Amino acid sequence: MRYQLYYWSGIQGRGEFVRLALEDAGADYRDVAREEGDQAMMPFLEGSASGVAPFAPPFLKAGPLLLAQTAGILQYLAPRLSLVPAAERTRLHAHQLQLTISDLVAEVHDTHHPLDANLYYEDQKEAAVLRARAFREQRTPKFLDYFEQRLDAGGGHALGRHSYVDLSLFQVMRGLSYAFPNAMRRRRRRWPRLLELAKRVEARPRLAAYLASPRRIAFNEDGIFRHYPELDDPR
Amino acid sequence: MRYQLYYWSGIQGRGEFVRLALEDAGADYRDVAREEGDQAMMPFLEGSASGVAPFAPPFLKAGPLLLAQTAGILQYLAPRLSLVPAAERTRLHAHQLQLTISDLVAEVHDTHHPLDANLYYEDQKEAAVLRARAFREQRTPKFLDYFEQRLDAGGGHALGRHSYVDLSLFQVMRGLSYAFPNAMRRRRRRWPRLLELAKRVEARPRLAAYLASPRRIAFNEDGIFRHYPELDDPR
Repeated sequence: MRYQLYYWSGIQGRGEFVRLALEDAGADYRDVAREEGDQAMMPFLEGSASGVAPFAPPFLKAGPLLLAQTAGILQYLAPRLSLVPAAERTRLHAHQLQLTISDLVAEVHDTHHPLDANLYYEDQKEAAVLRARAFREQRTPKFLDYFEQRLDAGGGHALGRHSYVDLSLFQVMRGLSYAFPNAMRRRRRRWPRLLELAKRVEARPRLAAYLASPRRIAFNEDGIFRHYPELDDPR
Repeated sequence: MRYQLYYWSGIQGRGEFVRLALEDAGADYRDVAREEGDQAMMPFLEGSASGVAPFAPPFLKAGPLLLAQTAGILQYLAPRLSLVPAAERTRLHAHQLQLTISDLVAEVHDTHHPLDANLYYEDQKEAAVLRARAFREQRTPKFLDYFEQRLDAGGGHALGRHSYVDLSLFQVMRGLSYAFPNAMRRRRRRWPRLLELAKRVEARPRLAAYLASPRRIAFNEDGIFRHYPELDDPR
C-alpha cells in the first residue's frame, strides 16, 4: 500500500478530510487504526516510531515520510492525487482555504467543548449553549459567506476546478447540517453555491461508492460535528 | 519594498510570527497598517482588491501574490528568507510544527474568549477562568512537552538548525510567560530547552535590535497573549 492513514477508528473527525481525498482519487491506502485498532497509533504518538512524532492524529505514512496535521497532509497528497491545479500560486491559495477550513473545524469542536476538551460535554453544557449560539449566529455566516464568495469567483469550485478543497467544503456542509440542522435549514438560501457543491461532490462516482460503503463512519456524538438539540436553533 | 505585511496595528497577535521572520532575516518589508492605519486592510478583506481575499489578517503581498494564514505565509517566506533547510521532508516537518503552534495560539486566544470572540472579556470571565485552568494544567504541558522533545531531538533547534520555527517558539514562550507568569515560573524546570532557545533567539543581533525598537509592539490586553491575573495560577 502506498499510503497508511492513522486516525481514531470511531469517528470521522479531522481524518475524514484526508479520507475523502484518498477515496475520491481512488488511492492505494490503508486506514490503519480501523483495521488494527487505535493502539496502532501509539508508537507514533509516543515518539518511539521513527520520524518526527505527530502531536495528534491524523497522520500519514508515505514510504519513509511520517506527516501530521490535516491541512499539511492534504497539501502533500493533493498534487500526487491530481486534486489541485499545478500552478504554485493556486496551490498556495488552496492551502490558505484549507487552513481556513481547519480554523472552522476547531471552532465547531469548541461548540460542544468550550471549557475543557477533557471534560464531558454534560459538564460544560451551559457554556456550550452560549458558544454554539455565537458560532451559529456569527461565525457560521462569516465562514460560509466567505466560501460562498470563493465558489462564486471560481464558477462553483473553490479553485476554478475540482480540488481537495471542494471535497473538504462538502464535508463541512454535511457536518454543519448534521450538527445544526435547524440553523442550516433556516439559512439555506444564503449559500446556494455551497449546497450545490455538496450535492455535486456527493454524486462523484468514487465518492458515492465510498459514502455508501461501511468505510464511511456515520456522524456521531464522539466526533467533531455533534448533534445536540440544545446547541441548535429551536425548530 | 519586496514584501508588504498587513496586520492589526495595535497588537502582536498572529502577525508577530511573520514579523519575527522578516526581522530576523533583515527582509525588505513594510508593515502597512502600522504606517497607514488598519483601514488599509479593508479593500483586501472586503474582496475589492485583486487576488484571493483573505479570511482574516495577517496577510502578505509579494508582487502579485496575496497570501493569508500565518503558517501558510511563513511556509512561503521561509525558503526565500533562508529560514528553513532545503530538504523537502524537513520543510514539511517545519510546517507541521508551525501548524501545531497555530493550534496552540488559537487555544491561547480562547482562554480569554471561551464563549464568544465578539463579547468583552468581562462578560465571559467566569468561563475564562475554567478554560484557562484547563489550558495551564493540561494543554500547556501537552504542547510544551511536545516541543521540548523536538528540541531535544534537534540539538536545541526544532529542525536541527536555526529556522522560523525557532522564532515562533521564542514568541510562544515569551507570550505564555507574559500571560501566565506564575504558571510558567512554577513549571520552568520542565522545559529547559525551550527556555534556553528563547534566550538564544532573543540575543540574535537583528532580533535584539527589533525587540528594542519601537517596531516591537508591547504585549497588551487587546492581543492574543493577555495577562489577567485571575486566569493565571495563584502566586
